[in-house]
Amino acid sequence: MLTMIIDCHGHYTTAPLALDAWRNQQIAGIKDPSVMPRAADLKISDDELRESIETNQLALMRKRGSDLTIFSPRASFMAHHIGDFQISSTWAAICNELCYRVSELFPDHFIPAAMLPQSPGVDPATCIPELVKCVEQYGNVGINLNPDPSGGHWTSPPLSDRYWYPIYEKMVEYDIPAMIHVSTSCNACFHTTGAHYLNADTTAFMQCLTSDLFTDFPSLKFVIPHGGGAVPYHWGRFRGLAQELKKPLLKDHLLNNVFFDTCVYHQPGIDLLTKVIPVDNILFASEMIGAVRGIDPETGEYFDDTKRYIEASNQLDEEARYKIYEGNARRVYPRLDRALRAKAGLTHA
Amino acid sequence: MLTMIIDCHGHYTTAPLALDAWRNQQIAGIKDPSVMPRAADLKISDDELRESIETNQLALMRKRGSDLTIFSPRASFMAHHIGDFQISSTWAAICNELCYRVSELFPDHFIPAAMLPQSPGVDPATCIPELVKCVEQYGNVGINLNPDPSGGHWTSPPLSDRYWYPIYEKMVEYDIPAMIHVSTSCNACFHTTGAHYLNADTTAFMQCLTSDLFTDFPSLKFVIPHGGGAVPYHWGRFRGLAQELKKPLLKDHLLNNVFFDTCVYHQPGIDLLTKVIPVDNILFASEMIGAVRGIDPETGEYFDDTKRYIEASNQLDEEARYKIYEGNARRVYPRLDRALRAKAGLTHA
Repeated sequence: MLTMIIDCHGHYTTAPLALDAWRNQQIAGIKDPSVMPRAADLKISDDELRESIETNQLALMRKRGSDLTIFSPRASFMAHHIGDFQISSTWAAICNELCYRVSELFPDHFIPAAMLPQSPGVDPATCIPELVKCVEQYGNVGINLNPDPSGGHWTSPPLSDRYWYPIYEKMVEYDIPAMIHVSTSCNACFHTTGAHYLNADTTAFMQCLTSDLFTDFPSLKFVIPHGGGAVPYHWGRFRGLAQELKKPLLKDHLLNNVFFDTCVYHQPGIDLLTKVIPVDNILFASEMIGAVRGIDPETGEYFDDTKRYIEASNQLDEEARYKIYEGNARRVYPRLDRALRAKAGLTHA
Repeated sequence: MLTMIIDCHGHYTTAPLALDAWRNQQIAGIKDPSVMPRAADLKISDDELRESIETNQLALMRKRGSDLTIFSPRASFMAHHIGDFQISSTWAAICNELCYRVSELFPDHFIPAAMLPQSPGVDPATCIPELVKCVEQYGNVGINLNPDPSGGHWTSPPLSDRYWYPIYEKMVEYDIPAMIHVSTSCNACFHTTGAHYLNADTTAFMQCLTSDLFTDFPSLKFVIPHGGGAVPYHWGRFRGLAQELKKPLLKDHLLNNVFFDTCVYHQPGIDLLTKVIPVDNILFASEMIGAVRGIDPETGEYFDDTKRYIEASNQLDEEARYKIYEGNARRVYPRLDRALRAKAGLTHA
């Protein structure tokens, strides 16, 4: 049977411009409630959604040869730091509904993951109704959890804090993983996609390392995007720090629960990732169409065509590639697996 | 002629405990000025300094085969977020004097680099008198510049901001580089050595990438420690982001001014670093004795014995190793080169 190529990290970065306009209006409405739009004011037709996907993500998926994308709202537009919980709540509902509609329009190619209506300083438990709706009504198979809803000021407790436990309890109940993904930086020190994203990946991993979070939640699963930030490159440092802190070996302490995607945009980076991180912990992803959209002048290929790097790796055999492309995603996202089995007409386990 | 092995990244992490006691007293004095110690209250004899070095850094240098360490005050103890400028100023003066004394006691093995008396929100120009003293009286060959004196709250402008220019003007005048090195994180989100350090490295690099700082200061030089944080692992991402931002190729945009050390504590990481970063931009370093002091159970050797990884690399020839160990350090730290030439009885260029 052919391996299915599952991209676990896609955002709806190409939504029709009406969405931007609505969001700008909402932001204007924070200062002047008389201009605040209603959710129902946003009108985007199925044809517009189809067009925005067919000419962008789906075209590239066909060209590059990936089959299915786990699709969530645009990460940089989550911007949880804007407004209060009500603002985030309305915005998350709109964005999640659009990804759901895309998944209904292209059921063979997109399956949704939810953004949460996080807001700085607001109890994460307030996100649960949106999460429940996205899983139960929209068929979402995962969530994006922002460890820093302040947008670069890092005012929330670490992910290991009980503050986040209501989210984790629901994740465990539903058997859904979280991709740990920040949004736009509003701190001038941090470029969003060049610093804040990678820093957050490293920070989240270290928050897990210093804690015993996965003792409390043995089945909780985190996907660290962007190839794990700095983590695989500094794997010796992290192994050494765990040892200093008298933690178990990382494979036992974290690797039953923490996974890395392949959003690393050059061959030497992917080669390092696949060399130091066990293949069971690597999930194929490209974050296409995302932060780096150009063609690498050194290769003549798109930087974010990460499948090329996986294919070109001389460290991966057929079984390893199957795990990275499909097997691990089915294991880490059990609801994805069930959806695929149901579609294939098989009874699920 | 034999290559000299120069470690460009060593901190005085093993200073006699009297230093800690003095600092704790100083911190107590912030709340209760009646207990504030005077600088002169700190008494550490030459014998104590000798002992602290001979049994630690120097013993390991001899064992591992490095010759000379560029030696600066303990990074995590800089803690610029504590107290005001006066507190930092007294503390920096004490710490810099100790490193100077070590360099006088062991002139063949240690040459000093200075910490600055930075303080959050205080004009960096206030650091210049300490910098001048360290260069002119103590023979310092570089400085450590903290891009986040707040300790993990990132409240200062980016390094590309004119805010920092007084420091850069003095660096250019003296022909000294800065290692961009943060201190202890007082933000619970960031583990100091597992997240904050690496994040700062990535952040600093991206601050340079998005700016035209080195157009304003063509001879300014930054050393990014810890192997450049996440940068080499994501070199494709950074090349792609520079392209999106219409910047020149990174080799032209940044690599005349930005250098990476080799504080990467496993072989695959060093192999990636030496593969993607031009050899002219890599400086040997171990940050020994530092964050990761243990023995790697996978190799039976110390994690931070980075010379082993350089030696074991199959990508480096003799000339490349000379550059990494000695040649690049002489070029990036011209005052080091002059000191070595003077010592060898040669007239300098």
